[in-house]
Amino acid sequence: MPVTALLADIKLQNKINLSNEPISYITLTFVNRPALGILPPENFPDKLTESLLSVAPSGMSRVQTMACGSCSNENAFKSIFIWYRNKERGHNTPSDEDLSTCMINQAPGCPDVSILSFMGSFHGRTMGCLATTHSKAIHKLDVPSFDWPIAPFPRLQYPLEEFSRENAQEESRCLEEVEDLIVKWRQKGKPVAGIVTEPIQAEGGDNHASPDFFRGLRNIARKHGCAFHVDEVQTGGGTTGKFWAHEHWGMDDPADIVSFSKKLLTGGYFQKDELQADKPYRIFNTWMGDPSKNLFLAEVLNVIRRENLLEEVTRSGKALLNGLYELQAQYPGILSRARGQGTFCAVDVCDDATRNSILFKAREKGVILGGCGDRTIRFRPALVFKEYHVHIFLNIFNDVLAQHK
Amino acid sequence: MPVTALLADIKLQNKINLSNEPISYITLTFVNRPALGILPPENFPDKLTESLLSVAPSGMSRVQTMACGSCSNENAFKSIFIWYRNKERGHNTPSDEDLSTCMINQAPGCPDVSILSFMGSFHGRTMGCLATTHSKAIHKLDVPSFDWPIAPFPRLQYPLEEFSRENAQEESRCLEEVEDLIVKWRQKGKPVAGIVTEPIQAEGGDNHASPDFFRGLRNIARKHGCAFHVDEVQTGGGTTGKFWAHEHWGMDDPADIVSFSKKLLTGGYFQKDELQADKPYRIFNTWMGDPSKNLFLAEVLNVIRRENLLEEVTRSGKALLNGLYELQAQYPGILSRARGQGTFCAVDVCDDATRNSILFKAREKGVILGGCGDRTIRFRPALVFKEYHVHIFLNIFNDVLAQHK
Repeated sequence: MPVTALLADIKLQNKINLSNEPISYITLTFVNRPALGILPPENFPDKLTESLLSVAPSGMSRVQTMACGSCSNENAFKSIFIWYRNKERGHNTPSDEDLSTCMINQAPGCPDVSILSFMGSFHGRTMGCLATTHSKAIHKLDVPSFDWPIAPFPRLQYPLEEFSRENAQEESRCLEEVEDLIVKWRQKGKPVAGIVTEPIQAEGGDNHASPDFFRGLRNIARKHGCAFHVDEVQTGGGTTGKFWAHEHWGMDDPADIVSFSKKLLTGGYFQKDELQADKPYRIFNTWMGDPSKNLFLAEVLNVIRRENLLEEVTRSGKALLNGLYELQAQYPGILSRARGQGTFCAVDVCDDATRNSILFKAREKGVILGGCGDRTIRFRPALVFKEYHVHIFLNIFNDVLAQHK
Repeated sequence: MPVTALLADIKLQNKINLSNEPISYITLTFVNRPALGILPPENFPDKLTESLLSVAPSGMSRVQTMACGSCSNENAFKSIFIWYRNKERGHNTPSDEDLSTCMINQAPGCPDVSILSFMGSFHGRTMGCLATTHSKAIHKLDVPSFDWPIAPFPRLQYPLEEFSRENAQEESRCLEEVEDLIVKWRQKGKPVAGIVTEPIQAEGGDNHASPDFFRGLRNIARKHGCAFHVDEVQTGGGTTGKFWAHEHWGMDDPADIVSFSKKLLTGGYFQKDELQADKPYRIFNTWMGDPSKNLFLAEVLNVIRRENLLEEVTRSGKALLNGLYELQAQYPGILSRARGQGTFCAVDVCDDATRNSILFKAREKGVILGGCGDRTIRFRPALVFKEYHVHIFLNIFNDVLAQHK
């Protein structure tokens, strides 16, 4: 159906619209690109309620859509900075000095505040996001950045049940370092307004940490008055077996702000009431997302519910991870550290040349796998990946590994 | 037509696709959200050639799509930084120190380089863009920024024909200041990698400068080895009577990089060959735009050509500006500095309270006008705004002004 036919269809509907029947919302949504910030479609709030707000994280009733993942995190950071500065002021009214200095990029209007992030993290590629991204040099090289604190992310040893004491120590060490950095940066005059983390560091190599670690981190944020921002751009949407990966932490109040994109088909973030900017036009741009993508999401959510896809993901994720355990026992010289949640699984390979060769050989056999970190293979099947797909895949993967033995 | 029907249609087409007829590209484009950077649709280059590349600015044959205006400018800046640093190195191979320091946000990997912008400019709201935006405090307040140079933009006196000497002096003063800042920031160790400007400062109050000013600026950029970035997010797409506002400068080589969004229905930027990043994944994200918006643009371009809309804009723009001249003669206590190019027109009001009251009263009479700067009314009619619309508008505007006399 060509665009012109869609347009003709609207014209026709306008002409024959004698009964005051409204023109189809769906047609209008797909042929318009509204300036969502200024002139949203009349029923846009209803459409948000049906789609995004129906999967709002615990404790959050506000959502802001954005056009992509980087814009989502940039604007989440801005929300955090606005909230933090108002908290410092004790009120929402900027001084004349704030207003005049911000126009020329200087403090106090453009304050020296910071976001704490983790080594190995990926939060996007625009300049605010890039200052919190530390996964690969190619993302950051040659781009000016901010002097913001960077904490170590736990490096867990596998299998987890054999290293529970060591891993708990490693997580404590990282949490202590987070607190030290918060104190140090406050002393430097660049206080930490927010902490940002992925529930699973994806691009950085599928690095997991325990629910205890994240509960500890959330408490540190609260203790030091920093917003806690959970970036679910990669992990959100059901692939870990829960709609949000942070649900695995089992908390009623997991975060102050949760950003999303990718599987949600639109970018954006959820936030607690207090993170909502105090005035209009502070968090704003022309498009602020795209209502047609919300329609996709509504339909995707219908399918997830109707076909119990989160249960399916949990089931096939278990089969996948068990398969990877067996393969790493079979090929100990090649595979190690099999790990995962739902189908969001990964396994390390002995070196990056072997990893890349495995990716290539698998593709020749019709399986598209991805790499992350230095020498990790990551699994990111669609939500419709079933147990029988797991077995098809494991057979192919076994053949590929046998070639590398 | 519900989304489910579209999906069903595809399923059906798949099932009955015995003749190897391809599924409609348009249907696929509207129901998919591809990861454009990794898996673009096979004919995406052709679609770009039909749409964006058919309106490429003079001297540019490369285009990069992006999801919004801010992402377009952020990535244009990144292209500039990458190009500049490779120029400084004399080659494209980063040192080990570059690679290790960039991971922790430090120089030389994350270098202290800068973008020179103008007071009154607006280039977007993500953190790199915001560092070059200086139109209103509300955009920038509370967000950390970079110490980048900010030059004065000419403040022209109207009517232009009465103040040609004064305006030429004003433009020279601003150009001298640009050169001084470039030298000063080089001495500070934060060399200017690029200069960014709007052809007409829109959000900042519809501030115009002469073609001579922009030719001078382009020469200064060339002389000092800075990339010249023209931000056509507001001005591009035909509203000035040419497809790009910079075409009014009459140059064969107007810029190194030209960004767009809004009327183009997709974000992105054109660039010269040498600005193309040296390696894959340096300018990259998941969506990198949205092919369905390129289809809209292709159809918009067809209509612009078929209906000679650039000529129409020129004609109705003249009528609008003449009408504004007459009204400012009639209401000298209220209106001043009528100015414009095509229908991209503006007029100043005596104070911001009167400006806002006029905007409100006009809306009550069915005319949506916008404000910009401190006390400017800006006109941004659609490309189909004809001469007879101008007269309808001028009558209403006259009525509104009469109420404020």
